[in-house]
Amino acid sequence: MSNNEDKPAGMNRRDLLGGTAKAAVMAGVVGAVGGGAAVSAGGSLLGASPAQAATASGQKYEVKPGDLDEYYVFHSGGHSGELRILGAPSMRELHRIPVFNRCSASGWGQTNESLKILTEGLSEETRKFLANKGGNWLNGDLHHPHMSFTDGTYDGRYIFVNDKANTRVARIRADIMKVDKVIEIPNVSAIHGLRLQKYPRTGYVFANAEQIVPMPNDGKNIDPKKYRTHFSAIDGDTMKVAWQVWVDGNLDNTEADYQGKYAYSTCYNSEAGVTTAEMTANEQDWIVIFNIKRIEEAVKAGKVQMMNGVPVVDGRKGSPFTRYVPIPNSPHGINAAPDGIHVTVNGKLSPTVSVMDVRKLDDLFDDKIQPRDVIVAEPKLGLGPLHTAYDGRGNAYTTLFLDSQVVKWNIDKAKRAYKGEKVDPIVQKLDVHYQPGHLHSSMGQTKEADGKWLIVLNKFSKDRFLNVGPSKPENDQLIDISGDEMKLVHDGPTYAEPHDTLIVHRSKVNPKSVFDRNDPMWEDARKQAKADGVSLEDDAKVIRDGNKVRVYMWQRAPAFGLEEFTVKQGDEVTIYLTNMDDVDDLTHGFTLTNHGIAMEIGPQQTSSVTFVAERPGVHWYYCQWFCHALHMEMGGRMIVEPRAV
Amino acid sequence: MSNNEDKPAGMNRRDLLGGTAKAAVMAGVVGAVGGGAAVSAGGSLLGASPAQAATASGQKYEVKPGDLDEYYVFHSGGHSGELRILGAPSMRELHRIPVFNRCSASGWGQTNESLKILTEGLSEETRKFLANKGGNWLNGDLHHPHMSFTDGTYDGRYIFVNDKANTRVARIRADIMKVDKVIEIPNVSAIHGLRLQKYPRTGYVFANAEQIVPMPNDGKNIDPKKYRTHFSAIDGDTMKVAWQVWVDGNLDNTEADYQGKYAYSTCYNSEAGVTTAEMTANEQDWIVIFNIKRIEEAVKAGKVQMMNGVPVVDGRKGSPFTRYVPIPNSPHGINAAPDGIHVTVNGKLSPTVSVMDVRKLDDLFDDKIQPRDVIVAEPKLGLGPLHTAYDGRGNAYTTLFLDSQVVKWNIDKAKRAYKGEKVDPIVQKLDVHYQPGHLHSSMGQTKEADGKWLIVLNKFSKDRFLNVGPSKPENDQLIDISGDEMKLVHDGPTYAEPHDTLIVHRSKVNPKSVFDRNDPMWEDARKQAKADGVSLEDDAKVIRDGNKVRVYMWQRAPAFGLEEFTVKQGDEVTIYLTNMDDVDDLTHGFTLTNHGIAMEIGPQQTSSVTFVAERPGVHWYYCQWFCHALHMEMGGRMIVEPRAV
Repeated sequence: MSNNEDKPAGMNRRDLLGGTAKAAVMAGVVGAVGGGAAVSAGGSLLGASPAQAATASGQKYEVKPGDLDEYYVFHSGGHSGELRILGAPSMRELHRIPVFNRCSASGWGQTNESLKILTEGLSEETRKFLANKGGNWLNGDLHHPHMSFTDGTYDGRYIFVNDKANTRVARIRADIMKVDKVIEIPNVSAIHGLRLQKYPRTGYVFANAEQIVPMPNDGKNIDPKKYRTHFSAIDGDTMKVAWQVWVDGNLDNTEADYQGKYAYSTCYNSEAGVTTAEMTANEQDWIVIFNIKRIEEAVKAGKVQMMNGVPVVDGRKGSPFTRYVPIPNSPHGINAAPDGIHVTVNGKLSPTVSVMDVRKLDDLFDDKIQPRDVIVAEPKLGLGPLHTAYDGRGNAYTTLFLDSQVVKWNIDKAKRAYKGEKVDPIVQKLDVHYQPGHLHSSMGQTKEADGKWLIVLNKFSKDRFLNVGPSKPENDQLIDISGDEMKLVHDGPTYAEPHDTLIVHRSKVNPKSVFDRNDPMWEDARKQAKADGVSLEDDAKVIRDGNKVRVYMWQRAPAFGLEEFTVKQGDEVTIYLTNMDDVDDLTHGFTLTNHGIAMEIGPQQTSSVTFVAERPGVHWYYCQWFCHALHMEMGGRMIVEPRAV
Repeated sequence: MSNNEDKPAGMNRRDLLGGTAKAAVMAGVVGAVGGGAAVSAGGSLLGASPAQAATASGQKYEVKPGDLDEYYVFHSGGHSGELRILGAPSMRELHRIPVFNRCSASGWGQTNESLKILTEGLSEETRKFLANKGGNWLNGDLHHPHMSFTDGTYDGRYIFVNDKANTRVARIRADIMKVDKVIEIPNVSAIHGLRLQKYPRTGYVFANAEQIVPMPNDGKNIDPKKYRTHFSAIDGDTMKVAWQVWVDGNLDNTEADYQGKYAYSTCYNSEAGVTTAEMTANEQDWIVIFNIKRIEEAVKAGKVQMMNGVPVVDGRKGSPFTRYVPIPNSPHGINAAPDGIHVTVNGKLSPTVSVMDVRKLDDLFDDKIQPRDVIVAEPKLGLGPLHTAYDGRGNAYTTLFLDSQVVKWNIDKAKRAYKGEKVDPIVQKLDVHYQPGHLHSSMGQTKEADGKWLIVLNKFSKDRFLNVGPSKPENDQLIDISGDEMKLVHDGPTYAEPHDTLIVHRSKVNPKSVFDRNDPMWEDARKQAKADGVSLEDDAKVIRDGNKVRVYMWQRAPAFGLEEFTVKQGDEVTIYLTNMDDVDDLTHGFTLTNHGIAMEIGPQQTSSVTFVAERPGVHWYYCQWFCHALHMEMGGRMIVEPRAV
């Protein structure tokens, strides 16, 4: 298959779909070739692309020492469980936000403040499960970061992320870049796709549960014919699940419109199969379209089944709440264009991308047209289309996983070709390295798409970096899309995994440098201090309350409020630390040696940690966040009197 | 204080020491100004440096897409607990090696293989402490990465690292870039300084315990007058503590010579104080020099006290094993020059760096000369000297924490000045941003120092990057030192914390891309499979053994050996997974949804995890490490039959 042979494919050319691409993909199933071999095959079929040496005028991509990046990049940490903040175009990692992971530096998963956030949104059953396990830790598989919207563009309030591994959604406050809510989504398993309501505001956080399971999943009925999943709408302000929709098939990625009327999800397992062979049996799967107004009315009218406190509407085929639009073979990504009109659905096992016109959806729900009538183009782009991004100038950029390429194509030309005109929508194919998944253009998921930069997240790097052993980095590539041709300017190695990303102009984000002493994060500490008659800001005191001991200390570089305190072996000790420095970047820490305890305390922050003092003797605590020339001397002693024998 | 006033200071100018610098530093103790204010103060005193715009010819520092870096950088993750691999000069993070942290992506701290490594080297007492705590997790504060030596240069076998927080030392196999040993060091608290024997090979891993504590530390004697610490020598091959030396004062950083005869440690708390005021009382502290041969002979002759299985020699003042050399005010870093002769000791609270000539040490131990006679230069460089690096051309580069500068100076000129000659050893001062700690030059801690690059690890970044909230990155700056003048070429933001680093030429490192099936890492799995009559490579089987269930599965993209298996609620389940793909970079994963379980399985690797199946129902497992176009479909179901009520 060469570029020249790539002619646009309409519904009248369905004979081309599901053939070549699916055969190439399924070859892997028998185990003869892995993903690696598939790359070489795709590459050699297409030949080398000369695009990297293109002479596009190009933007400046070096960010000199001391210069600031133009964009924040909110970068999924994948199964590392964290969210990362990068700068673009430098592609430097500026910060890590622990979310579904445990962080040794910040104490995330250990401080009382973080444990409250991480556990209060879990189900009773999961909390019991964790208690039985003897811990409070769940790994995470963080897939999709998205910033809250107002009127179709980012508003800098929150970033929402999902955890596929343990069926959770988390919210990050963009004013301090810390998580403030984590909830487990009931009645479903494995939240994969996540997108936000764009208009009038977020509003809803839409979340797809990918896996089909029995419901209730209590082991009493395990017949695969009864497995199901739900689409969830979470209220982004309260972080409560507003409603769910029971659908046919499974749910993969999701998207919302620019009008506040519809959301859509892809389904790669319309077969509701439980083996790979069953899941890939059909030549077509579908997207399901959700009519938000009709669902809200049903919820309001109580036409729902209540399940674990959540109103669930029945959105299976034939319901008024949904429409199912057939899409060639196992569609994956779904992406709304910044024009507010077009939505692309990426074929994965089909070489096509299907383009939907959202202006037709009212008619579809009113049964004036057929489901496939909403499709206005279906260009055949190459092998393994997964996701599409936009430049705001009418062009789309689609990753081809098997071909290891990004293809730039024109939406209008694709529509004309679909109508039968002899026009090639493909503008350029650029080799990427290797096997790209998500991609994202600057501001490209908003109405303010600016067409400057494209980040392509490649799952394999192979030979692109110094060899670091069997576990190799992925590769985030930065592409200049400001000119007529795409130009690759940077290879960015990444630790597991570059799942999805978000490029936000710096004008949209405005974090604080110093905490507000009234921040709600440490409300419990504030209450306890008040009850103990202690000022968090000024006091350094030890309060004994039976075998519970509360130690209050301020920190000012290079000193702790207390240079020693004494407890008894077996005491339950809570340490409250308040960093009274108010200088930008002057973070302190608290590490209690040989106790597995460490946490950060940012400028003007209060953090606390609770443990049982079970090691008699003298144990030093120290500031592990370098703060001062006398940082090494900044410490104190916890003296634990031995239990009487 | 201006540059012109910086005249070399010999012992006859001790009136200059401990005055200005200490006053500037101690101002912070009263809490009036933090580290941040100190920066501004230092900066305004010195004025802006024009060095960044220097016209030094300069090396190429852009690494184009697809090009490889020339150097591996092994980069401390500080209190994040991990080790990082960067490439230089691109300064891109190529990999993270979990060490003292818990990693959601790789399963470090969760797989049976990693738990064995993390726990078998702990003391009985610590294991009991962790069991009582209901977990197996200890945070880490990883300070100093160093690669094993043969004949004074890196040999690519191992990287050793220390954990200050929980008194541990770990070894990383450089062939696969994974930890294979973690040990807790007995009889001491808080391993801070760590360096390796350079000649004839590593050999010893020298480790400084920073904190002074009662020994035994059981709470029965808490009198600060009895606190002590030990210097430890670990056998790098066996990872057993070979011997310890009881010293006066505390221990900070350490270093070894190029002759295999001596090791040295700085002490900032010769006062053996327990408060900051006590620790900083004296105008002088010291370095302690260890005579390895004499110590080994004493150990061999049994002239030791055995403590928890470790031979301890008494190296306090007056012993034949050590010499104490007075050094101005609270010395911190200690660095052997690549000439094999000179060792610099950085004054921290003194503006001086003391230069020792190691050829004088035999005479010192034979009492032919006085301790201070080993000092051959003591240039006054600026405020807050912490660490020194070398270019192999006779120049040294010292970080000035308070001045936020790196100063380049000439060792020979400093020696001449110390003898009274009117010569200024200072070549150049370069502003860095801000408050530098460690610095490292390419191959600079070996006899093959090549004088090309310098990485300076700054504790504060303040305004150098986009604002990411109260918790800001540190800043690793890359400086071209190949010309006559230092030239700053890159600002590198880092998550907690850029503690120390190591720049190794790529010719020294040669990792594997695919595991050897005989790798010792999964020896236990191999034995268990043999006992169960199972082939790890070919079988997909479930073995029941009472309420213990062992599930064996291979993986080949995009399939697991088993698409389902069934267990009973309450079973203790162990999953053994073997990745049979042998393509570079084709890592698989195993995530068990809603069970807090995830791990990586590299090409040709076996990994295992054990848990109790306490959730009845249908639970999907999936591959979380993107591997194939059908990666999303790569999964299976664990069916848990409910416990009979």
